Amino acid sequence: MRYEELSIEGRNAVLEAFRGGKTIDKLYVLEGCQDGPVRTIIREAKKQDTLLYFVSRERLDQMSKTGKHQGVIAFGAAYAYAEVEDMLEAARKKGEDPFLILLDGIEDPHNLGAIIRTANLAGAHGVIIPKRRAAGLTATVAKTSAGALNYTPVAKVTNLVSTMEDLKRKGLWFVCADMGGELMYRCNLRGPLGLVIGSEGEGVSRLVREHCDFTAAVPMKGDIDSLNASVAAGVLAYEIVRQRMGQ
Amino acid sequence: MRYEELSIEGRNAVLEAFRGGKTIDKLYVLEGCQDGPVRTIIREAKKQDTLLYFVSRERLDQMSKTGKHQGVIAFGAAYAYAEVEDMLEAARKKGEDPFLILLDGIEDPHNLGAIIRTANLAGAHGVIIPKRRAAGLTATVAKTSAGALNYTPVAKVTNLVSTMEDLKRKGLWFVCADMGGELMYRCNLRGPLGLVIGSEGEGVSRLVREHCDFTAAVPMKGDIDSLNASVAAGVLAYEIVRQRMGQ
Repeated sequence: MRYEELSIEGRNAVLEAFRGGKTIDKLYVLEGCQDGPVRTIIREAKKQDTLLYFVSRERLDQMSKTGKHQGVIAFGAAYAYAEVEDMLEAARKKGEDPFLILLDGIEDPHNLGAIIRTANLAGAHGVIIPKRRAAGLTATVAKTSAGALNYTPVAKVTNLVSTMEDLKRKGLWFVCADMGGELMYRCNLRGPLGLVIGSEGEGVSRLVREHCDFTAAVPMKGDIDSLNASVAAGVLAYEIVRQRMGQ
Repeated sequence: MRYEELSIEGRNAVLEAFRGGKTIDKLYVLEGCQDGPVRTIIREAKKQDTLLYFVSRERLDQMSKTGKHQGVIAFGAAYAYAEVEDMLEAARKKGEDPFLILLDGIEDPHNLGAIIRTANLAGAHGVIIPKRRAAGLTATVAKTSAGALNYTPVAKVTNLVSTMEDLKRKGLWFVCADMGGELMYRCNLRGPLGLVIGSEGEGVSRLVREHCDFTAAVPMKGDIDSLNASVAAGVLAYEIVRQRMGQ
């Protein structure tokens, strides 16, 4: 298991945990407690889909490990972000060409969870997400990933483009999805590869696209513009699987 | 466009619309109105993800067409369900083998919307859903379908198995997805075909599975059990596209 349960007690500690982007699954609050700091904590909890329980002082005292809960106890899973190097190492150990999935600004936690799930089953060695304007590893993502987050490493990087440049020096090619590209069946997707998936609204950003070696198009036979981001990731990831299986 | 805007006024009419499963996008409620019937309507609205606005009496009076709003006005899109026969007719007109997607109990409206989106882009002639224990065409589904609901017909049937029996008499074959099946690349998915996708939790039900002609497996290289339902539908629908394109 790649995560550990943690409990956080006291107003400052809990608020800092929320603001620092820690994954908080549940928050227990003393019932009737309505002062400013507690209201701020509750607001943060609601923003982050945290399950909220109002309980009696006796119950909180029982749950407390420090005896200083100040009316709030949070429980979370500290999902550890991985390093990109660990993913390459995992590929080396399996004797496989690296296969990474890079997400250029996926903001919907359900999409992120579904993509981590797909990455696991398609045999990708990891998922890379940017620090800014993207969903992080929240409890919703963990839940939607259906357990895949325990197996498939996720790395958070400051700058997607410089990570791509670094990986290119290590032999990876990059493909992004776009309607204007070559039909995906005609792209060679067998070598060491990074698959880039764009955001729900904007697609792949210009700078990231310019750093891709080629553009693959999913055939579009309908009337609308694009697949859901996690479906597009699934269809492309499985085209990579098919080609690598020699089917 | 396959839908029309409608407005519903008055407490009974609005409550009936909610309970009858009509798609209500927005609900306007007289501010400060807190009696039992209005609270019941608000509860139904919250269940169904309806956007809720509390407005002044002047505003409601302006919006009202009947002058008898009783403090509530609802706006919805009346998405029309299609008939299965229309889908077969659409395939005939295009000179294509019918390609239908049957959903055996998809309950998450985001999954249903994403699958309708995929059906549109993969060139399926329609989506068939059962009446019971399944998401219907709510506003969330319409939104998640990204417009595909305006183009791809969705039929709601009382009994999925008897619909399959009927379609078999008309020459369709049925394939369902299951880990225990034949690797999907080795299944012949080119003829008149119904693709059956199981529910998020349970997969394809026994009776429906027994009525399928064959079972196709998506290759699974990871540690967890299954793909997200809408991703699985996407990967299988695109395997059908690939085979039909002769790639």
